[in-house]
Amino acid sequence: MSAKIIEFLFDFGSPATYLAHTQMPRLAADTGARVDYVPMLLGGVFKATGNQSPMAVPAKGRWMGRDLARWAGRYGVPFAFNPHFPVNTLALMRGAVAVQARQPERFMPYVDAVFRAMWVEPVDLGDPAVLASTLQAAGFDPHELLAMVGDAEVKARLIANTEAAVARGVFGAPTFFVGSEMFFGQDRLDFVREAALHRGRP
Amino acid sequence: MSAKIIEFLFDFGSPATYLAHTQMPRLAADTGARVDYVPMLLGGVFKATGNQSPMAVPAKGRWMGRDLARWAGRYGVPFAFNPHFPVNTLALMRGAVAVQARQPERFMPYVDAVFRAMWVEPVDLGDPAVLASTLQAAGFDPHELLAMVGDAEVKARLIANTEAAVARGVFGAPTFFVGSEMFFGQDRLDFVREAALHRGRP
Repeated sequence: MSAKIIEFLFDFGSPATYLAHTQMPRLAADTGARVDYVPMLLGGVFKATGNQSPMAVPAKGRWMGRDLARWAGRYGVPFAFNPHFPVNTLALMRGAVAVQARQPERFMPYVDAVFRAMWVEPVDLGDPAVLASTLQAAGFDPHELLAMVGDAEVKARLIANTEAAVARGVFGAPTFFVGSEMFFGQDRLDFVREAALHRGRP
Repeated sequence: MSAKIIEFLFDFGSPATYLAHTQMPRLAADTGARVDYVPMLLGGVFKATGNQSPMAVPAKGRWMGRDLARWAGRYGVPFAFNPHFPVNTLALMRGAVAVQARQPERFMPYVDAVFRAMWVEPVDLGDPAVLASTLQAAGFDPHELLAMVGDAEVKARLIANTEAAVARGVFGAPTFFVGSEMFFGQDRLDFVREAALHRGRP
């Protein structure tokens, strides 16, 4: 029997992606699907597609702040817009690639800890000292992790993930795939759920 | 007893706004609110805010086409992306202002006819002959309507509506207001419904 899979393409820098992340356990339970987290670099996606953060348009950014808070309320999850936005997530996303490949059992704790630090606490993960203490609090050795982050294979994997996403039509985050069907946005989880329920067997 | 009001800021050129339009009767019935249609010029809003059509980013445009079709399926309404997109809607929106002010009982038939021509049939309303026959089929005298469209007061009203929208934070279409609460997008009707049910008494 083949497993149903929902691919979840993410970057820690996107607040909507944090909201989607909070809903993945329920989505998996509702559909019986496995959720595969795929780290990508949103900045690279924007550069390749000509897209930009909604925050780049001031009026849209103001509305997004209210909209994200409304969704957090609907989901019943904590959320605070990070005052240090936008944060350069290159090291964080390389960290995700590294942990996923080398300590897969530690991957979800890593993802949870970084999303929480970015969009719940919220702290400045662009500050190396803050990043180190966040990783340490989540049970990681910052020095060991930062060494993995500098690895050429890790860097190449993140680039490859990002290029593959763009080639499949990705222009923002979060993006979901159920087979070849693509869904953009944390506000499309209903459609992802339907697709996984009805057409999710590859 | 004061009436509950949902303001619906629209431009015929936006396919998502057509989808929202199809849901207004149900939204009104569900909430007991009156829906006030407010014509605005989306091009003017984009110019004032620095926003742009999602179609301007090719990858986003391709996804939008699929996304709009999914929503049309969920709503159970006919939809066809207009191959002549983007259409200059200046005359159409001035027409909406004119009919709303001078033949209010003919306003909804006008709005229905134009949205249908644009996003169901779909025809090229930028072609004066097509526009004339569309208006005629909807029971309007094209010459009379086009004369109203050229009126200075009508032109000024559309500009005033658009400037007022921007001043309230509008950056795209469709946009809804329930009191001072703003909602952007046909995919936010659930939130509009909740706001109208719980806080819609001005």
